[in-house]
Amino acid sequence: MPDFRPPQHLPFELAEYQQRLKNTKEAMGRSGVEALLITDPGNMNYLTGYDGWSFYVHQGVLILIDQEEPIWFGRAQDSNGAVLTTWLDKENIYGYRDNYVQSKLSHPMEFAADILNERGYAKRRLAVEMDSYYFTGRCLDMLRRSLPHATIIDGDDIVRWVRCIKSAKELDYLRMAARITEQVMQKAIDGIGIGVREGDVAGEVYKAQICGTADFTGDYPAIAPIMPSGIRTSTAHLSWTDRRYEHGDIVLLELGGAKHHYNMPLARTVMIGEPPKELQDVAEVAIDGLNRVLEFIRPGVTAEEVEAKWRESISGSRVVKESRVGYAFGLNYPPDWGEHTISLRPGDKTVLKPNMTIHFMPGIWLDTFGFECTEPIVLTEQGCETFIDFPRKLFIK
Amino acid sequence: MPDFRPPQHLPFELAEYQQRLKNTKEAMGRSGVEALLITDPGNMNYLTGYDGWSFYVHQGVLILIDQEEPIWFGRAQDSNGAVLTTWLDKENIYGYRDNYVQSKLSHPMEFAADILNERGYAKRRLAVEMDSYYFTGRCLDMLRRSLPHATIIDGDDIVRWVRCIKSAKELDYLRMAARITEQVMQKAIDGIGIGVREGDVAGEVYKAQICGTADFTGDYPAIAPIMPSGIRTSTAHLSWTDRRYEHGDIVLLELGGAKHHYNMPLARTVMIGEPPKELQDVAEVAIDGLNRVLEFIRPGVTAEEVEAKWRESISGSRVVKESRVGYAFGLNYPPDWGEHTISLRPGDKTVLKPNMTIHFMPGIWLDTFGFECTEPIVLTEQGCETFIDFPRKLFIK
Repeated sequence: MPDFRPPQHLPFELAEYQQRLKNTKEAMGRSGVEALLITDPGNMNYLTGYDGWSFYVHQGVLILIDQEEPIWFGRAQDSNGAVLTTWLDKENIYGYRDNYVQSKLSHPMEFAADILNERGYAKRRLAVEMDSYYFTGRCLDMLRRSLPHATIIDGDDIVRWVRCIKSAKELDYLRMAARITEQVMQKAIDGIGIGVREGDVAGEVYKAQICGTADFTGDYPAIAPIMPSGIRTSTAHLSWTDRRYEHGDIVLLELGGAKHHYNMPLARTVMIGEPPKELQDVAEVAIDGLNRVLEFIRPGVTAEEVEAKWRESISGSRVVKESRVGYAFGLNYPPDWGEHTISLRPGDKTVLKPNMTIHFMPGIWLDTFGFECTEPIVLTEQGCETFIDFPRKLFIK
Repeated sequence: MPDFRPPQHLPFELAEYQQRLKNTKEAMGRSGVEALLITDPGNMNYLTGYDGWSFYVHQGVLILIDQEEPIWFGRAQDSNGAVLTTWLDKENIYGYRDNYVQSKLSHPMEFAADILNERGYAKRRLAVEMDSYYFTGRCLDMLRRSLPHATIIDGDDIVRWVRCIKSAKELDYLRMAARITEQVMQKAIDGIGIGVREGDVAGEVYKAQICGTADFTGDYPAIAPIMPSGIRTSTAHLSWTDRRYEHGDIVLLELGGAKHHYNMPLARTVMIGEPPKELQDVAEVAIDGLNRVLEFIRPGVTAEEVEAKWRESISGSRVVKESRVGYAFGLNYPPDWGEHTISLRPGDKTVLKPNMTIHFMPGIWLDTFGFECTEPIVLTEQGCETFIDFPRKLFIK
């Protein structure tokens, strides 16, 4: 490890990270959690600043209730990355040797257990992010085996709910991401046309995501461009192919921009040629419903009330929508920009509060085509503010 | 779901998928596995063709030893994606309702358990991909709870080892990806220069990855462009920033191209200005070691013997390299293009065979800078063939 402390270029002031840590420890205290193992890369970044594409090997951050700083652990060749991108002292950065990598003989969670042992936490109440992407079944079993006297419980909800209300600086980054997203969407719509390869439009989308604006570049968004055409718009998560666009194609565009890994999603729909009556009808109903929901949404209402408002708006129409119509979003790494907290659907009784960020996403996927027109918003004191300035309509090429 | 069967545009003939399935069932048989739950998106694609960015919710493929076809399950809004991108009959495509999505009340693995129950496999020997990215600790616990009479064992090694030897058609796609990677690397090297924003070069890299060639476009590689500069080259997995390149910068470029999700990785190093003696020395030793290993590697030698050859080649120099020097690669989705089978390191006694694909990757990360020059190869009958035609040298700008 370098024997000097390089200048820090963290996206937030130290005080903000420390406030996040304090909020996390308070949440741990309320749940009787003494040690928290964080493996979600977004949560790791949120608390420490750590930023590397190293989540393809096991790594994590440990929050110990009585200790001032978090502990980062990961592969030795990434520990300089932790020195360079986090605010942690080097004594709290632990790199494991390469024999722990993708091996049947030793597992990084044994290394994590050794740290807990060394710090006196081997017999205490340990929460893990049970359903986070990079915390595997084997991770859980290895921890149980290595810490037989610890009580291991689910900590999925600890950091993600702390993150739910955004700070002023977080909103700044989300607004920077929004400027990128607007350019990305415009680039995609401009590029689509008869005879153009889908992949060539996708390439321009990627370039716009990363080159960003004259003032700042972008980061990789947490979801790849979703941009199916034709029959492939009947489902939610397909991308481009080598196919060339044809007259009569519908194209769904679900695209993001990101700054400091704060993601800004947006979806719009393009029709090449005259739209069929059925698509026009769906678009009209969906956009009208979207507008009504944006007027309705405000602090004090619950997530399920927002969904009910949407359902009321489309009732009597032919639009059927059985999946949730939105979710909390923000800081994240692949594969998802959603925060896995608020879902706009029946049964979600979360009371909305100022500075929560929600992607209102009433995607419609019918038997042979789909339609998407969405808005990412932030709750204000009185209602909501949209992040994005982009027409709400079916685009015709 | 559409009530018609759209034309299939799968990247492989049905017979190839069926051969893969047969090989998988034989491997299951050898391990006494009666049902295999696959959650690795690369493995899902390998056996069924399934291709969507839906791995951010739980999904999987079930292989039942006595049943002809695999079963796909996932979110209902993605099941049309399975109809469109797999060779499976609709009766083997199961979509779950949205109340299973990111919920504390119901979990997709309960849905998977219901399918196993319905098919008569609830009390049999079930293997799961215990350490695959999207199989979480909660997935494992929910399966154990929902299938109390099943024997649940680790199946991580079943499909990934079947994939290890590539078919002619897979090699075709890897060669297509190699053409993209060459263009991507050239674009990056061309773009780097004093005063240029790192993110602008990254944007051009992304565009080149996706726009591909005049004959075909590319898919999103499984790893984002790794391209740190300056002090950030002292670690393995950092990317670009808003910084502008300066005289005296070292830039690492670890970049990929992909076709049909077959990834082709490559790393090179760029120096802006006159390289320091220490960097020149490291480059010379590393490239010489690389060349010697490529002459040595052939069927019949073991993975650890290749690493030993590398270590012998650099002995006496100042180059220190403690991590593995290569790994199997191929079909994959984020976050990794490695296949988690062969690692070139001490203790890996895998005997190399023709048509195995390995990224020889002797990345060197020292205290204040790094150097990377790598080659992805395929084992031939007599030795190895490099996929990429790109100079092995330190690039000076």
